[in-house]
Amino acid sequence: MSRDSLRVLPLGGLGEIGKNMTVVEYGGRIVVVDTGLRFPTADMLGIDLVLPDFAYLRDRAKDIEAIVVTHGHEDHLGALPWVLRELRDEHLPTVYGGRLTIAMARSKLDEHKLREAPLEDLEPGEELTLGPFGLELVHMTHSIPDSCAVALSTDLGTILITGDYKFDQTPVDGDPADVSRLAELGRDGVLLLCGDSTNADRPGFSPSERIVGPHLEEVFARAQGRIVVTSFASNIHRVQQVIDAAAALGRKVSLVGRSMRKNVNIGRSLGHIELPDGIVIQPHEVEDWADHKVVVISTGSQGEPLSALRRMAHNDHRMIKLHRGDTVVFSATPIPGNERAVNETVDRLYHIGCDVITPREAPIHASGHGYQEELKLMLNLVKPRYVMPVHGDHKRIHLHAQLADAVGIDSGDVFSGENGLPLELDGRGARFGEPEQSGMIFVDGVDIGDPADVALRDRRMLSADGIFIVVATVSEQSGESVAPPEVIFRGVPFIEQADRLVVDIRAEVERSLAHSARDGIREIDLLQQELHDDLAAFVYDRLRRRPMVLPVVVEV
Amino acid sequence: MSRDSLRVLPLGGLGEIGKNMTVVEYGGRIVVVDTGLRFPTADMLGIDLVLPDFAYLRDRAKDIEAIVVTHGHEDHLGALPWVLRELRDEHLPTVYGGRLTIAMARSKLDEHKLREAPLEDLEPGEELTLGPFGLELVHMTHSIPDSCAVALSTDLGTILITGDYKFDQTPVDGDPADVSRLAELGRDGVLLLCGDSTNADRPGFSPSERIVGPHLEEVFARAQGRIVVTSFASNIHRVQQVIDAAAALGRKVSLVGRSMRKNVNIGRSLGHIELPDGIVIQPHEVEDWADHKVVVISTGSQGEPLSALRRMAHNDHRMIKLHRGDTVVFSATPIPGNERAVNETVDRLYHIGCDVITPREAPIHASGHGYQEELKLMLNLVKPRYVMPVHGDHKRIHLHAQLADAVGIDSGDVFSGENGLPLELDGRGARFGEPEQSGMIFVDGVDIGDPADVALRDRRMLSADGIFIVVATVSEQSGESVAPPEVIFRGVPFIEQADRLVVDIRAEVERSLAHSARDGIREIDLLQQELHDDLAAFVYDRLRRRPMVLPVVVEV
Repeated sequence: MSRDSLRVLPLGGLGEIGKNMTVVEYGGRIVVVDTGLRFPTADMLGIDLVLPDFAYLRDRAKDIEAIVVTHGHEDHLGALPWVLRELRDEHLPTVYGGRLTIAMARSKLDEHKLREAPLEDLEPGEELTLGPFGLELVHMTHSIPDSCAVALSTDLGTILITGDYKFDQTPVDGDPADVSRLAELGRDGVLLLCGDSTNADRPGFSPSERIVGPHLEEVFARAQGRIVVTSFASNIHRVQQVIDAAAALGRKVSLVGRSMRKNVNIGRSLGHIELPDGIVIQPHEVEDWADHKVVVISTGSQGEPLSALRRMAHNDHRMIKLHRGDTVVFSATPIPGNERAVNETVDRLYHIGCDVITPREAPIHASGHGYQEELKLMLNLVKPRYVMPVHGDHKRIHLHAQLADAVGIDSGDVFSGENGLPLELDGRGARFGEPEQSGMIFVDGVDIGDPADVALRDRRMLSADGIFIVVATVSEQSGESVAPPEVIFRGVPFIEQADRLVVDIRAEVERSLAHSARDGIREIDLLQQELHDDLAAFVYDRLRRRPMVLPVVVEV
Repeated sequence: MSRDSLRVLPLGGLGEIGKNMTVVEYGGRIVVVDTGLRFPTADMLGIDLVLPDFAYLRDRAKDIEAIVVTHGHEDHLGALPWVLRELRDEHLPTVYGGRLTIAMARSKLDEHKLREAPLEDLEPGEELTLGPFGLELVHMTHSIPDSCAVALSTDLGTILITGDYKFDQTPVDGDPADVSRLAELGRDGVLLLCGDSTNADRPGFSPSERIVGPHLEEVFARAQGRIVVTSFASNIHRVQQVIDAAAALGRKVSLVGRSMRKNVNIGRSLGHIELPDGIVIQPHEVEDWADHKVVVISTGSQGEPLSALRRMAHNDHRMIKLHRGDTVVFSATPIPGNERAVNETVDRLYHIGCDVITPREAPIHASGHGYQEELKLMLNLVKPRYVMPVHGDHKRIHLHAQLADAVGIDSGDVFSGENGLPLELDGRGARFGEPEQSGMIFVDGVDIGDPADVALRDRRMLSADGIFIVVATVSEQSGESVAPPEVIFRGVPFIEQADRLVVDIRAEVERSLAHSARDGIREIDLLQQELHDDLAAFVYDRLRRRPMVLPVVVEV
């Protein structure tokens, strides 16, 4: 790559939903847009979080002018502590974003004891020079306030990265996306648009967030008992609408769940949330009020194991006990992969005798991502020379590319990329360059590591069939067994035949050792290898299962 | 319970989707309706299948008059081999069902080497006396041919168990559900209706299976390249419609996947499937034909790991390589829990460049279960004295009970039950009796066991954090360590610090042993307990994780 070309390298968010991160490079300098994470899927055993592999940034730490975060959701902000921890020995770049975004970043970095990181609010429209880049945020609407698109201008042209957005014409805070600024950028010429593809499969326009409020109020008006509403804690306008609906019906509101309380506090301090006087009651006061006087706003819309709502559904919440006649309102849809946990929670609630209202029953949720017509509107406003769809699995990237085609953009100018595949732009055009290292890194307890990690392979094996451990004690002189072998198993099922099987395995160990001794095998590693092979075959033959077999030979 | 009362004991299918099994008892004699299984959820590590706990039947084997299977789906038939294997030493009851159901049961029992089990076709309308019971099957429509409701008549009245059904007025084989017989039974008086609740949450009538054919043909007509259709192999009328659409467009058909070939063969031999002459080509011949001349019918509609379609999506199928321009048609919806596997398969297909058509894009699937209006129609036809909704989670059972209310059945006559909770009926009315043993048993390799199984608890622990094994060799005389301890770990992540950690753990083992020796602890079990506690604390302190810690003390 020439230093004169502009390079856009997605390190996450392509061919997947989540862990969005894009590296923009020009004149040897770098701006990173978003540092997101993903949550692990069920096959990532014991893994807590998934980050983009950002080895590329580690090697280039000194060249990083800034990190820009489009909004405060985990899939755009969540990897920030890990990225900064890796970079800080070399060079700690400033992190820019809207006000709420920076407040959430600060709270997150505090938890990670990274208080020295420089964080800066940036007002949409303010212009900033970062080395060879001009940076400007453009106000957008999404399911969290202060969401922005990022315009990075260079000598070669402007790159617009939309972040997550919808064109909500009647947002709850009265502040729609800045379409005029987008149009201006388009008129002045945008070289590349990197656009959100999340809802590229949904026809039409997304409904406005504002429609949710009246429907919530209708649902509330029909409820006889207590009402519990669950939603994303960061969806501050949604929480505001729940509060407003509660106020309209003369109900008190109680905020339950740590992240709900935290986000409402941050939202309040920034003026995004208004609480009518005296409306809030503490969770421990809920039981003091008549059922028809209370709305509980709770975490747990995704059926998360330790969330407040999940605990209530399992009759396991310290302060709030649900009962027949209560109404639980899911003002959210399950993120793909969470369907089972959500269904399970819903079914527990039915079992208690609650009424459950989900977005299937009433329009009490609106997506934060624009639908097909909005993606087309963005393309028409910005009129980019080139397009690279981002934030989507292969299907959505493909469908977003079709939308670009539908508005008349030449298919040769649309680049359906992959994580790690840099798009290079210069006076002669645009093309993909050589792939850079990319992928997943796993957060597991205090450590991070790569997904091909031996530990995870072992866990898969252990989780499927368990483990057999055999400890044999052999004479250093003769190599012969001098004590009965110990046989220990964990996670291996065999119901009625355990005792007999252990006896048989002991005999097999003795047989194998005697065989090795006869063959003159003395080296411990070799002995263990022989034992392993003999025992694995024996166990498979008996159980038709392949537990991990781990022989330990002790020489005395 | 008095011998004079009639008892209906659901052992599965209530508060869950799957493993349907109902025990009907009168005068000390038993008829079992359905022996279904469920597939494991992601947290059932290494488990292959889930069966209803049928301990109750084991204790009563000699009293079982018959097993009746309503249709050939796994959630109604799949547990049959395990049930018969448990019963055979005492008494092997005859298994009754429709023709296809019995053919599928036979094929299944053959695989399990249970060829001695007596199986009998029963024609709908044929009446049979089984001890104190009269048995009659009533022809119904569902997503597999030969589906039946079961009418069991006794002195006390008739019980109607619907099995899975829809009221398809235009089924593909021209043979709609026998509503007149249902009406007759209703006129003569049905004491209890046990009705399918699967779609109790869907308003209206389900679409007819017949609408799928023309839509498939439309989708096929638009496809330029090869077409791959995936559906449930047992949905024989769907497979027929795919074949018909292929024939109409002059395409050859290839059947791919073991169960697809097996079911088509069974369906053909019973006259449920007609193959136009010369239409079938073998999978290895697919590459010999022009792309626009081929339709592949494949297993894998649920994204199953080893299925033919999943292999194709991962470019890993021996005979069929998909490429850009091929169209893949999902003529099925994901069963709850399979969404992620299906989405992953779809996304791999997009990555290859295939067009993917799912029921979201076109009406190419019809559910086999009746919607709310059909459930009401059943209630109105049968006019039962009492109702017990079955086949559904708590939500659907609750909604089915609401439908009974809507057609005017007194809510006191509707029993929302639970697995293991028997409904007892006699001259004085109906009421729930004392709960019987019920729950899940897990099939794991060749064995079956219960879910509270230690093996599964261990697997969960192993899968989350791995295992540490420490082998210490101590002197029989002094109890002191006589050789450096062996430290082995599997599935424990620690990236850069492994060597140091192993050294530190060795030191900790020595410290713990010395401590025990000082305290005069010599008994191996106690030594191991001390070691375990010391090491577990040490490892947690260092890794902030709780791997399983397994100390083995060898005395020499």
